[in-house]
Amino acid sequence: MEQSLKIYTEHRKKLLAMQYVDFLIGWDTQTDAAENSIIADSAQMSVISEFSYKLSTDPQFESAVETLYARRDELDDVMRHEIETVYKNINDVKKIPIEEYTAYSQLSSQAYPVYVRAKTENNFELFRPYLEKIVEFCRKQTVWLATDKLQGYDVLLDMYEPHYTQAEYDKFFDVLRKRLVPFVRQRTAQPTVKPQWANQTFDANKQREFCEYLRDVMCFDKSRGIMKESEHPFTSGFGTDDVRITNHYYPDSLLSSVFSAIHETGHATYEQQVDPALNGTLSGGGASLGLHESQSRFYENMIGRSRAFWQAHFGKLQQVFAPQLDGVSPDEFMRYVNAVERSFVRTEADELTYPLHIMLRYEIEQKLICGELQVKDLPAYWNDKFTEYFGITPPTDTLGVLQDVHWAYGNFGYFPTYALGSAIAAQLYHAMNADFDVEASLADGTTARINEWLKSHVHKYGSSKYPDEILRLATGEDFDPEYYVDYLIGKYSAQ
Amino acid sequence: MEQSLKIYTEHRKKLLAMQYVDFLIGWDTQTDAAENSIIADSAQMSVISEFSYKLSTDPQFESAVETLYARRDELDDVMRHEIETVYKNINDVKKIPIEEYTAYSQLSSQAYPVYVRAKTENNFELFRPYLEKIVEFCRKQTVWLATDKLQGYDVLLDMYEPHYTQAEYDKFFDVLRKRLVPFVRQRTAQPTVKPQWANQTFDANKQREFCEYLRDVMCFDKSRGIMKESEHPFTSGFGTDDVRITNHYYPDSLLSSVFSAIHETGHATYEQQVDPALNGTLSGGGASLGLHESQSRFYENMIGRSRAFWQAHFGKLQQVFAPQLDGVSPDEFMRYVNAVERSFVRTEADELTYPLHIMLRYEIEQKLICGELQVKDLPAYWNDKFTEYFGITPPTDTLGVLQDVHWAYGNFGYFPTYALGSAIAAQLYHAMNADFDVEASLADGTTARINEWLKSHVHKYGSSKYPDEILRLATGEDFDPEYYVDYLIGKYSAQ
Repeated sequence: MEQSLKIYTEHRKKLLAMQYVDFLIGWDTQTDAAENSIIADSAQMSVISEFSYKLSTDPQFESAVETLYARRDELDDVMRHEIETVYKNINDVKKIPIEEYTAYSQLSSQAYPVYVRAKTENNFELFRPYLEKIVEFCRKQTVWLATDKLQGYDVLLDMYEPHYTQAEYDKFFDVLRKRLVPFVRQRTAQPTVKPQWANQTFDANKQREFCEYLRDVMCFDKSRGIMKESEHPFTSGFGTDDVRITNHYYPDSLLSSVFSAIHETGHATYEQQVDPALNGTLSGGGASLGLHESQSRFYENMIGRSRAFWQAHFGKLQQVFAPQLDGVSPDEFMRYVNAVERSFVRTEADELTYPLHIMLRYEIEQKLICGELQVKDLPAYWNDKFTEYFGITPPTDTLGVLQDVHWAYGNFGYFPTYALGSAIAAQLYHAMNADFDVEASLADGTTARINEWLKSHVHKYGSSKYPDEILRLATGEDFDPEYYVDYLIGKYSAQ
Repeated sequence: MEQSLKIYTEHRKKLLAMQYVDFLIGWDTQTDAAENSIIADSAQMSVISEFSYKLSTDPQFESAVETLYARRDELDDVMRHEIETVYKNINDVKKIPIEEYTAYSQLSSQAYPVYVRAKTENNFELFRPYLEKIVEFCRKQTVWLATDKLQGYDVLLDMYEPHYTQAEYDKFFDVLRKRLVPFVRQRTAQPTVKPQWANQTFDANKQREFCEYLRDVMCFDKSRGIMKESEHPFTSGFGTDDVRITNHYYPDSLLSSVFSAIHETGHATYEQQVDPALNGTLSGGGASLGLHESQSRFYENMIGRSRAFWQAHFGKLQQVFAPQLDGVSPDEFMRYVNAVERSFVRTEADELTYPLHIMLRYEIEQKLICGELQVKDLPAYWNDKFTEYFGITPPTDTLGVLQDVHWAYGNFGYFPTYALGSAIAAQLYHAMNADFDVEASLADGTTARINEWLKSHVHKYGSSKYPDEILRLATGEDFDPEYYVDYLIGKYSAQ
């Protein structure tokens, strides 16, 4: 036991060092590296990958993990959870036949450029044979990785969001289907008119200035992280002391950078507020994709699209862009940032219609994985269902079934975490409001009180517990999607 | 032989991968990383250092190198040179007693903060005991690493600039002492008056714009590198496909960023123009510190401070800063960038007086290492010699013997390469002018023809030959410092 713990913690240092190297290479590739300097396919990258692979399959490490797993009841809570996770990962990898895995890796790298071409040319048939093989592999995965508790699509769902399976998601999307679909249909019957002032161009440097202000409003600790530019906004980092956000400034879209800044700073706040004692373990960072997304969405939607937020900060926005927003009121601006509209593309959807895009993908994945739906029938099925939920029909597959890259990467089970994040955010918002008046707390000009609540109820745990456990500790309840639908219908009925 | 070559080339891939990781960490530390995100003393950094150390001391690798070294006559030129270098490095490390090395590493890390304090407080005595131990270690190094050909100070000189020893440097500095010291005294008798227009402030964004223009003038390949900001300008990279330059923009000093841009792009041009066939070997990059510096100085001084250069580009500078430089002529500007003045601080010295600062340091190092001069006598000796060469006396040790960090790092033997670089640049300039009229070639608005000449005469070799060999191939002659003094006296007599 003693010996195994020693081997484990020594080896963990090496794993973390390679995680750091991966983080840094990813960061550099997405920010600084020139077009021909990217090392993805280079000799040094394959050496680094081989180092990492050897570390994660080291027999001495694996045997230490097995010993610790067998005696996990003697470990403290954090270590027990960590060992359970590492043990599962090691064994899951072993359950996949190596030749299948190799063939699939090759398929994946071939599929991506074909997907890009198919999307550009609106040609689903081009991508179809690749997607068929990808779905085939994912179906096999559900067999290889099946356990007593997890079978079929649940195997994939649990990979992205531990402990959330069809039992939870079905309940979730049933509520959406019953309560949200009719509400959205009624609420979006009239087209939205974009106000005149929103059609101006907004200087990129001024956008940056305002986003830096927002970062300070959200109390981002600049001594432990930075904010930079990249093609697509993202958050990345290593531990609590190095948390990095990027943004992108489009002169023709003010809202894009503003809400990316709030969204990414939400992710960053989670990372910066993890208990620093978890640095140097594998229990740092966010607990899951869905819980991470719940934090970015919480700040973006519950806070960043609230009346109180713009009461406090619209003056600064007006000042930075003076005189472009003269004569606009905080409430007008707040209504503009909450405009809703039916649209074809998920990534451009507003807060209200967004979850319906995910619901559609969830149903499709469920049917594809269990074999009820075949890849060849996908485009027609997509369009039928889309029409049913949104009342409009995608004019092309580019704007329909081909719009997202996730399936080309074989990421079946990933999409549901996006909607889950918003629903968890609403449940946390409800619990937080029971403790103090959240909107009123924004009057001091920062999100300090909100950060504090989230730190002590969610962030501090890092990934040392499962996401459902953390939600239960934070709210005293199991996941309950009614909070989310109540929140959405309440908010969008009032406007 | 076959087997050893295979082991060597496989292992080299790993060494290069770790070099890449070191490059990336260094780049990130000096550009992006926030104050508390710097990983220098972190657990992951010690894992990475240990990886690197194990790689470079791998017994299988060492035995392969030994085999290849014994049979080096059967290798091609590039590989033979590489094996000689690697063999020497491996064996030099082994000659230093491990306990001495460890003690010295500890001393080094203690010495730096003391040096900084001593400099700030103008208190040499504070730093003296540390410097004494550092000098003591360097003297021992000359014994441990002595060979038939190299003894005493030559051991240290050869570490920084292979094949350049006191025989060459004495000849070099003798010429400077005889011809340059009297010329400088006469040329700097009258103080320089800074023109009125140079006292304006110059917008940092406009400085950046002009520096980006200069980068294009010098044909920097942007698809294989970038230009960014950092506290101090530097050049870094990996192979020919990833070459990175930084700069710093001070509103009160236009010349600082302009000449840093030219200087660093000079280094970068060298790196980008190495034969790409040397990527993936240990024979890429520059051949030595001195030869690298010869390239940056060549572009900075011979080209960037020439009449023809500003005839071609002053118009652009005027345009970027309009109307701040209206009424200034290209020749006036050219004279301003070539202003000379006696000064105390090396890093602020002009082209003409710079080498005398180095000459002083060379003499001191020579006497310190052979034991003719003791550390306790350094401040007085520095001031005496400085007065002899410059005709002015440093008012403090901060502006005298404490000004440079190099000795605190134990880098005895490094300084001479700075002056050597300028002298080699002058010798190359002479040879280039024999092939074509260098200043006239600038009329087309770029340095393309100059780059081409340096590529085929110097850059393409990378570090696959010793610097003296490359100079001989490029100019047909051994190193000859008279070219440098002729160049300086000719240029600064004309103005």
